[in-house]
Amino acid sequence: MSANDHKKNEHNMDGMPKDGNRAPVTIIGLGMMGSALARAFLKEGHPTTVWNRAAGKAGTLAAMGAAVAGTAAEAVAASPLVVICVLDYEVMNEILASAGGILSGRVLVNLTNGTPAQARNAAAWAARQGAEYLDGGIMAVPQMIGAPGALVLYSGSPSSFTMYQQSLESLGASHYVGEDPGLASLYDLALLSAMFGMFGGFFQAVAMVRAEMIPASVFTPLVIPWLSAMMNAFPRMAQAVDTGEHGTDVSSLNINKSSFVNLIEASRDLGLSADLMTPLQALVNRGVAEGYGADGLSRLVELIRRPIST
Amino acid sequence: MSANDHKKNEHNMDGMPKDGNRAPVTIIGLGMMGSALARAFLKEGHPTTVWNRAAGKAGTLAAMGAAVAGTAAEAVAASPLVVICVLDYEVMNEILASAGGILSGRVLVNLTNGTPAQARNAAAWAARQGAEYLDGGIMAVPQMIGAPGALVLYSGSPSSFTMYQQSLESLGASHYVGEDPGLASLYDLALLSAMFGMFGGFFQAVAMVRAEMIPASVFTPLVIPWLSAMMNAFPRMAQAVDTGEHGTDVSSLNINKSSFVNLIEASRDLGLSADLMTPLQALVNRGVAEGYGADGLSRLVELIRRPIST
Repeated sequence: MSANDHKKNEHNMDGMPKDGNRAPVTIIGLGMMGSALARAFLKEGHPTTVWNRAAGKAGTLAAMGAAVAGTAAEAVAASPLVVICVLDYEVMNEILASAGGILSGRVLVNLTNGTPAQARNAAAWAARQGAEYLDGGIMAVPQMIGAPGALVLYSGSPSSFTMYQQSLESLGASHYVGEDPGLASLYDLALLSAMFGMFGGFFQAVAMVRAEMIPASVFTPLVIPWLSAMMNAFPRMAQAVDTGEHGTDVSSLNINKSSFVNLIEASRDLGLSADLMTPLQALVNRGVAEGYGADGLSRLVELIRRPIST
Repeated sequence: MSANDHKKNEHNMDGMPKDGNRAPVTIIGLGMMGSALARAFLKEGHPTTVWNRAAGKAGTLAAMGAAVAGTAAEAVAASPLVVICVLDYEVMNEILASAGGILSGRVLVNLTNGTPAQARNAAAWAARQGAEYLDGGIMAVPQMIGAPGALVLYSGSPSSFTMYQQSLESLGASHYVGEDPGLASLYDLALLSAMFGMFGGFFQAVAMVRAEMIPASVFTPLVIPWLSAMMNAFPRMAQAVDTGEHGTDVSSLNINKSSFVNLIEASRDLGLSADLMTPLQALVNRGVAEGYGADGLSRLVELIRRPIST
């Protein structure tokens, strides 16, 4: 199916050009996230077919107007746009094995969590079935799907993204990151890494103040503006990383080395583990030992190379 | 010296009530930060006396109008408000040992980096000299001192803070966190922990995208709004920590456990160390193993207790 064929189909559906809006869509996988995706498509008026491997998940969606397919193959056959969101790639591979040939000429949008390597393998498999492939990384919890603030990253077939962008925006803001199908997963996991780092730092901080009987809710109004202000350093740090010029007149590895000694000693004085903090301390100390003490913290990005020994 | 005596002195100085503004101030320690503090006081019109252990640091400040003391004792004697900002507590103790008696009746504001325990010891020592004590945590780099965005946390003598708040605001916004002199350091180190966590996550993320040849500056515009949005979870997490009720319908430890597997595998596929990420993963896995899999991430704060074995 070409982009033009598909647009023609949509014109035929209600006589009005929709630029991919209200395209028939199939959702495979009706866990919390898959169900949220199906609801969002239904809410935007897409003819929606759903299927889940375990029965009994489609009742509410059927009541909202979804067609419930009897098999995965039937589900795939129902729509030119097939969205799959299941537990992991193993489950996805099992499900799609039974529907491979039917995918030919369709667009498979894979929102299953995985690694860039898994996404690339899935794209290669889809190509062998004659399907176009988009991989997606959902930067939202199910409750946010279809609401402001939800972001979904896509990579893979550029023409498929162009064709279905408006449909996919039923789920949230869409952001295309490149033709390599692994990129959406890469960006997704990189953003999750950033989030987990921030959460880990916040948890350590909260554990510290609570060990002195200060409620987390008293501390939090201080930490939010502080981190927001510190985030202003990101563009400058990014530029340093991209150019390899990490010199700074602001805050050097040498200065931060002293701060780490104090904060780890304080955590331990409070009876807390400092395990969330020691790996970055080790990087700072390594940077200083390798002669980068006068450089800014951005230098540490270059030290996150996997040691040969592990 | 009581608050009233001091206010009277200030009235006498130029005949106008100043509420602590333009109080004579002494700065001990003229490293990058100490020099920035002295400049900020001078800029606001405070009669300013400076001293540094190693000579040759005061030239520029003298040209700006600072009086340069010949000894630490002379520096302390020059002002009712004595600010010290040196490398560490060892240096501070050596310097003040020679000026202990002269501190009597004065207010010592200690902005030297250290732990809460060190601050409490310094406060006890100051009390034995008959001095009032404020401890401060500077949440800014030297370049920010006296400019919008600089924040200094204070703890210790409440009457001293009231008396000198306006003077201290020459340095940046002031925030008093409590009478326990260790609290400013505690908040300072907790905020630094939060910052380092956020930076560590950002560095991991940047290392990941750069391993796929994506410039950090291309990725950064995505990560800033993402982290800002995720920060909106802090107040809810703080409430969960304070109440001990970590149940969630948003994002459970179980779900995040899977994300960690993917992001660590992806980092290793890219030839990167995952050391910045594995300690939080270990906490997530421990939480799941202890039966908290359905709880939100805030549960992890309770697991940052130091293991008996370390």
